[in-house]
Amino acid sequence: MKLITLLTDFGLQDGYPGIMKGVIWGIAPDVQIVDLTHLIHPQNILEGALALGRASPYFPPGTIHLAVVDPGVGTRRRPIAAQIGGSFFVGPDNGLCTALLDQAAEKSQPHQVVQLDQPRFWLPEVSNVFHGRDIFAPVAAHLANGVLLTQLGTPVEEVVRLHIPRPQPLDGPGRRGWQGQVIHVDAFGNLSTNFTLQHVPDAHEICLSIAGQVIYGLSHTFGEGQPGDLVAILDSAGQISVCEVNGSAALHLKVASGEPVEMYWQA
Amino acid sequence: MKLITLLTDFGLQDGYPGIMKGVIWGIAPDVQIVDLTHLIHPQNILEGALALGRASPYFPPGTIHLAVVDPGVGTRRRPIAAQIGGSFFVGPDNGLCTALLDQAAEKSQPHQVVQLDQPRFWLPEVSNVFHGRDIFAPVAAHLANGVLLTQLGTPVEEVVRLHIPRPQPLDGPGRRGWQGQVIHVDAFGNLSTNFTLQHVPDAHEICLSIAGQVIYGLSHTFGEGQPGDLVAILDSAGQISVCEVNGSAALHLKVASGEPVEMYWQA
Amino acid sequence: MKLITLLTDFGLQDGYPGIMKGVIWGIAPDVQIVDLTHLIHPQNILEGALALGRASPYFPPGTIHLAVVDPGVGTRRRPIAAQIGGSFFVGPDNGLCTALLDQAAEKSQPHQVVQLDQPRFWLPEVSNVFHGRDIFAPVAAHLANGVLLTQLGTPVEEVVRLHIPRPQPLDGPGRRGWQGQVIHVDAFGNLSTNFTLQHVPDAHEICLSIAGQVIYGLSHTFGEGQPGDLVAILDSAGQISVCEVNGSAALHLKVASGEPVEMYWQA
Repeated sequence: MKLITLLTDFGLQDGYPGIMKGVIWGIAPDVQIVDLTHLIHPQNILEGALALGRASPYFPPGTIHLAVVDPGVGTRRRPIAAQIGGSFFVGPDNGLCTALLDQAAEKSQPHQVVQLDQPRFWLPEVSNVFHGRDIFAPVAAHLANGVLLTQLGTPVEEVVRLHIPRPQPLDGPGRRGWQGQVIHVDAFGNLSTNFTLQHVPDAHEICLSIAGQVIYGLSHTFGEGQPGDLVAILDSAGQISVCEVNGSAALHLKVASGEPVEMYWQA
Repeated sequence: MKLITLLTDFGLQDGYPGIMKGVIWGIAPDVQIVDLTHLIHPQNILEGALALGRASPYFPPGTIHLAVVDPGVGTRRRPIAAQIGGSFFVGPDNGLCTALLDQAAEKSQPHQVVQLDQPRFWLPEVSNVFHGRDIFAPVAAHLANGVLLTQLGTPVEEVVRLHIPRPQPLDGPGRRGWQGQVIHVDAFGNLSTNFTLQHVPDAHEICLSIAGQVIYGLSHTFGEGQPGDLVAILDSAGQISVCEVNGSAALHLKVASGEPVEMYWQA
Repeated sequence: MKLITLLTDFGLQDGYPGIMKGVIWGIAPDVQIVDLTHLIHPQNILEGALALGRASPYFPPGTIHLAVVDPGVGTRRRPIAAQIGGSFFVGPDNGLCTALLDQAAEKSQPHQVVQLDQPRFWLPEVSNVFHGRDIFAPVAAHLANGVLLTQLGTPVEEVVRLHIPRPQPLDGPGRRGWQGQVIHVDAFGNLSTNFTLQHVPDAHEICLSIAGQVIYGLSHTFGEGQPGDLVAILDSAGQISVCEVNGSAALHLKVASGEPVEMYWQA
């Protein structure tokens, strides 16, 4: 069985993701389709790329990730398909697959990208505003049916890659650490930072400073705090997160993605 | 494989669409089920009918559209099933299938409607408030299993049809055009009007007037404008839409479905 | 075919339910997965338990209900799996399966519960914050594949059960009845109470009193009132509900779950 995941900024009210499923199942009746999210903020490519990066490690080899956050639809931005490590990506060449490429590079896995230029694998009529339906969904379905990447288009060497912000060293008299930022706010209001365990020193207790508040140490579970406490925790994507026990840290601190965070310790 | 689509105004918090899937898969384990949307505004039958019309051309022949926007549930409004062109409709007889009937009529495709009156194809107990679960879901599942339309109920000649507003000619000294309206606002805030390319003259540049603003000409893609610009574009359903580049025209203009729009040109 | 249902408080924006599906389908490619809801209010275990109770009677025997509303994740609260009557539950031992246990008890059906303690049926790495992905999803998939409950863990005798509020007799001079409360507000704003037909006397007309308003008698359908009227109706889960015809009783009365309701009649 083949899996196709869908990630878009289309929202849930208008039926666009359902229409893409109609196109897919019309071509590849035996695939399973997984909605990752359709609530990426409109045109927020970085948010989409990060969400795809969080999800893809948990899908079986061969999964096809169909992702459409596409402010450039109908312009000269290229439609692409790619094999990236063990999985596939179909969508616009605007950086949406950046995290997939980074993960493959970390594991020294190769990738291969083609520019989609074979209209026989598209719907007969292609609008200028909904390539998700007219190009990407049918291409993903044909991939699932066993069509080769190289049949779908012409190899390209370079793809657009987003800058994913990385923590910067933060050194001063008497303390060491990193300057980072919030890169994701989830539905609970948990604040994922771009710090991972790699940034945490072995022999020192850390402090996190965000929006004028300081959090001491890393907790192992939410249960170590009292309801309402702010805690720092290793989240399910391997990132250090700032969370309110049984509450929303985003509301508590009134912050959003991009908020600066410092992690430091006594040097 | 058979496909059943679901379109309702049930929302996503209470589990009602999932319950309908339990009923369907209990009867027809091999169907695939596609959520079109469950966020039709409560009791807005016209919105549901238009959403179904946008989606149905992209589903394979034989697809069963199960639609429940049903303010008259439990009253004398009839439960129906229909074959309309190559696809099926199951739901209340309140106009929800109007766009499907119109599309079939444009292609000179026949339709056949039955009033559902065979309780052996329903759940054993039928509530007065949730026919989606108790009548429509099991009927759709039996249809998918190969039960004939005529086994499910008694043929009826007439069904309720909604008035879908059409543009009216707009003639005055020195200009010609159409008086139309916004018929759908999508999650991006794009405003679909009831103008199609049929209303656009071959040899003249058009203007669109809405909420005191005038938009000159039709753009081919969002990319032709600058972020924040209002553009008119042919949308993915074949309608002329008013959009803000990388923004929400609905918020920009503070308008909703039903807003009047004029399209005109120099005569 | 096996069915797995998902019920969580994860929301729809972040992709967490989709990640659980990736894990499930990686282990059990042939199951079907049904989203019940992912919009349980964060950490509201009772709301999740009641939603599961409304849904489960409509699923075929053998269905596996995977439910994660889990404020205690990573603490000493136990992960469990259970056979309850004809269906299965996988999730935290915090009361989420209370309504399933109550329904089985009403039908004198047995249940069997195990504490999940066999990591070979989990993902290789288990985080402290997302057991839905790392423990419950893989366990549900292995159950669907035919692994026995007793292979997944060690039998336990007692599980955590929630207090589901029951109506209390309300007697006074000249009238009899029940003191109850609103236990669910659905997306339409309908107010489900904890009264069922068992609380309604055979020979008397009832009155419902809520938020200073009195509703006389039980209606059979929404259609018996005029738009804007408040009516009391037997809802699709067998509960007496207070509804506004074509509107929202929750907005009309400005009430939420927990609101007291009296049902009474002339003695």
